[in-house]
Amino acid sequence: MERRPAHVDLLDDTHTRARPRVVVVGGGFAGLRAARELRRAPVDVVVLDRRNHHLFQPLLYQVATAGLSAPDIARPIRTVLRRQRNAIVLLAEVEAVRPAERILQLRDGERVAYDHLILATGLRTSYFGNDSWRSLAPGLKSVADALEIRRRVLLAFEAAEREPDPERRRPWQTFVVVGAGPTGVELAGALREIATRTLARDFRRIDAAATRVLLVDGASRVLPGFPEPLSDPARRMLEGLGVEVRLGARITRLDGTAAWLGEERVETRTVLWAAGVEAEPLARTLGVERTSDGRVKVGPDLRVPGHPEIQVVGDLAALRQDGEWVPGLAPAAIQMGRHAARNVRRAVRGQPPEPFRYRDRGMMATVGRAAAVARVGPFDVAGLGAWLLWLGVHIVTLIGFRNRLVVLIDWAWAYVTFQRSARVAEELRHPRPGEDGAPEAPPAEPRADP
Amino acid sequence: MERRPAHVDLLDDTHTRARPRVVVVGGGFAGLRAARELRRAPVDVVVLDRRNHHLFQPLLYQVATAGLSAPDIARPIRTVLRRQRNAIVLLAEVEAVRPAERILQLRDGERVAYDHLILATGLRTSYFGNDSWRSLAPGLKSVADALEIRRRVLLAFEAAEREPDPERRRPWQTFVVVGAGPTGVELAGALREIATRTLARDFRRIDAAATRVLLVDGASRVLPGFPEPLSDPARRMLEGLGVEVRLGARITRLDGTAAWLGEERVETRTVLWAAGVEAEPLARTLGVERTSDGRVKVGPDLRVPGHPEIQVVGDLAALRQDGEWVPGLAPAAIQMGRHAARNVRRAVRGQPPEPFRYRDRGMMATVGRAAAVARVGPFDVAGLGAWLLWLGVHIVTLIGFRNRLVVLIDWAWAYVTFQRSARVAEELRHPRPGEDGAPEAPPAEPRADP
Repeated sequence: MERRPAHVDLLDDTHTRARPRVVVVGGGFAGLRAARELRRAPVDVVVLDRRNHHLFQPLLYQVATAGLSAPDIARPIRTVLRRQRNAIVLLAEVEAVRPAERILQLRDGERVAYDHLILATGLRTSYFGNDSWRSLAPGLKSVADALEIRRRVLLAFEAAEREPDPERRRPWQTFVVVGAGPTGVELAGALREIATRTLARDFRRIDAAATRVLLVDGASRVLPGFPEPLSDPARRMLEGLGVEVRLGARITRLDGTAAWLGEERVETRTVLWAAGVEAEPLARTLGVERTSDGRVKVGPDLRVPGHPEIQVVGDLAALRQDGEWVPGLAPAAIQMGRHAARNVRRAVRGQPPEPFRYRDRGMMATVGRAAAVARVGPFDVAGLGAWLLWLGVHIVTLIGFRNRLVVLIDWAWAYVTFQRSARVAEELRHPRPGEDGAPEAPPAEPRADP
Repeated sequence: MERRPAHVDLLDDTHTRARPRVVVVGGGFAGLRAARELRRAPVDVVVLDRRNHHLFQPLLYQVATAGLSAPDIARPIRTVLRRQRNAIVLLAEVEAVRPAERILQLRDGERVAYDHLILATGLRTSYFGNDSWRSLAPGLKSVADALEIRRRVLLAFEAAEREPDPERRRPWQTFVVVGAGPTGVELAGALREIATRTLARDFRRIDAAATRVLLVDGASRVLPGFPEPLSDPARRMLEGLGVEVRLGARITRLDGTAAWLGEERVETRTVLWAAGVEAEPLARTLGVERTSDGRVKVGPDLRVPGHPEIQVVGDLAALRQDGEWVPGLAPAAIQMGRHAARNVRRAVRGQPPEPFRYRDRGMMATVGRAAAVARVGPFDVAGLGAWLLWLGVHIVTLIGFRNRLVVLIDWAWAYVTFQRSARVAEELRHPRPGEDGAPEAPPAEPRADP
């Protein structure tokens, strides 16, 4: 078969190629970094993603809470890689990996051969087996998730304003956030800020400040994945904002009209799910050992045992280091992506892979304006200092991402004035009981859904 | 019944009130202006809309073509009216007007009484009876419409990049825009600019510049509603951008794989509908004379014959002046809204209404960067001059609308660099034949939908 430019035969399923082909599945922090680090390598790079955009995940909660527009934190993957001549980007959903044949099976029936595979599909929201909860309590992993949460939150306040009966109004003004990790903490804090500061003056009938926000977690402290000393300050900041923190509590039932915390029934129309994550089913097709949440156990060099040509990076990779899991954070994903690319370059040169070393630069979570917690090296910071640090880090990361000015203007504006510049719900219609996206009305009271 | 603050009993359906209640249906240019002009009047104002946001319609096509984020041109209605103490905003869909009882029937069963009614619901996309085309060829009236068009356009290019067979790739790179009014002209021009400038460097396999854009209209000239001298320059600019203008041609059939222009079958996966508008069914319930497209024939004072307490404004109002229809443009809507408010104030003072006078400040349409046509008073302008005028007018109008800086930065950036800052499709998944939002695959070739 005669040599054609790399991009012409990139979807073939043969292995007769002039240059080895590196297929990267997933255009998140890990996958994108891996692809970029291969720009000077003598390989053809194919990036597959089922969405067209790379997402700046750490600020996705700001889209969900109307602080940012979706495009502010999303950028087309092919634009990011535009100038990388040895890379192409294809919109495709990978259904299965066939390690024996070194082939990817796509959802639409096509097959893509790889010489090196870098799997970076990340994790999805997990409902711990209660998949019927998915429609009742949206998670926050994609832009679509964020817009659905935004829609429900804005809709809830509008419905409350419509409801003359205080008894029936209360559930619309009660928000339950499940999971007290960084995302849950950010959402809960933002919801109280929206209610007390952003919307307070906009509504006539309802007292937006009377909005209840419950943050529920089965653990004994907020930010369970964070260093212990950060949990109490974070909890105090949340409670300072008016968030009701319920620890050691689990959701036992959801039905669209209420959330059950064990025996306690909390009437609510809006439940947001930040409780857990799990691997996409794709990971199963690797046929290797995985953790209970489906992450792939990789060797110290990020390679999959028994398949030296397959590396798993980012949140999907399960790797212990000094007895601790490498955390599912953007910095870890970026470091892994860079390392996977290095290993590919070494393999092309006939050199053995190197072990991956995660450099812990700390972690941070924000609660609200001027309120955050952070661990930086050996130091734990809380309050304004941590928040300024958080702000600085995200601004610096965003710079060069895209559209920095717009993002920073929007964002600074939102924080300083408590305004939310993106308070548009794409199709904010008044829900009828059982209508798509609308909580179901309780059987007993047909008018409860005004 | 004792006097309570206006906002408490605003949803009652009685007419025992201390101050007359003015209900405005629709938060567009006309309705919002009417509400604001009543801010000092001794009345209670209720604004009902089924969406939470006021939309800057003239730039909606920029959202559809990824030039702007939806929130850039949308603003919560209740935020606009925040400081107007005599006004409340309620998210509600009005199902029927009961002129005899002076009551509005809401979709959710509630009833709202009015003393004065200002109907400003605008118009929706019309498929001239072919309602099955609605899913095959989205219109452009709402944010949801714009995001759906954006999704389909971006998806089409992604699908083309995926398709190895040039024969099967062509339909993905063929766009048919139906209707050569301002919206159709703007969409067609923007599509060619996106293909030739914005995306050209992003794709490897496809030649984005080979993208076909057909602009189809049954009329004998583009911009049929505009002064005749503007049509030829507009057409030349479109053809200069590479748009194939097909006049005197009508769509006779759509099936998701092709569009039929009479006998000619054009294979296409993306058809955009800007061909016609019609009134929402609500207008019918007024029980008064209407035009063939359902607009309400109002008297010279904007009142509905036989119902002095009902005024119809904006696109929904059918009014002839000097033998010509008052055009469905934002300036006309704003003038009508202002006038309706004046008539209400006069009625409250016991004075008779005044006739409405439309002041024609001209009209303009943009084709692309540095290309537009405009009539200003007696002058017809085309080209760069008209475009700078168009740009200036929209910038001025946007200032004070919201977030002007963000919009202008985004927008200027898009024009100067041909970039499109909002190229995110909220849920851009690879379509399967028949999948929602995905064109159906032709029965013959199951793989035609890659």
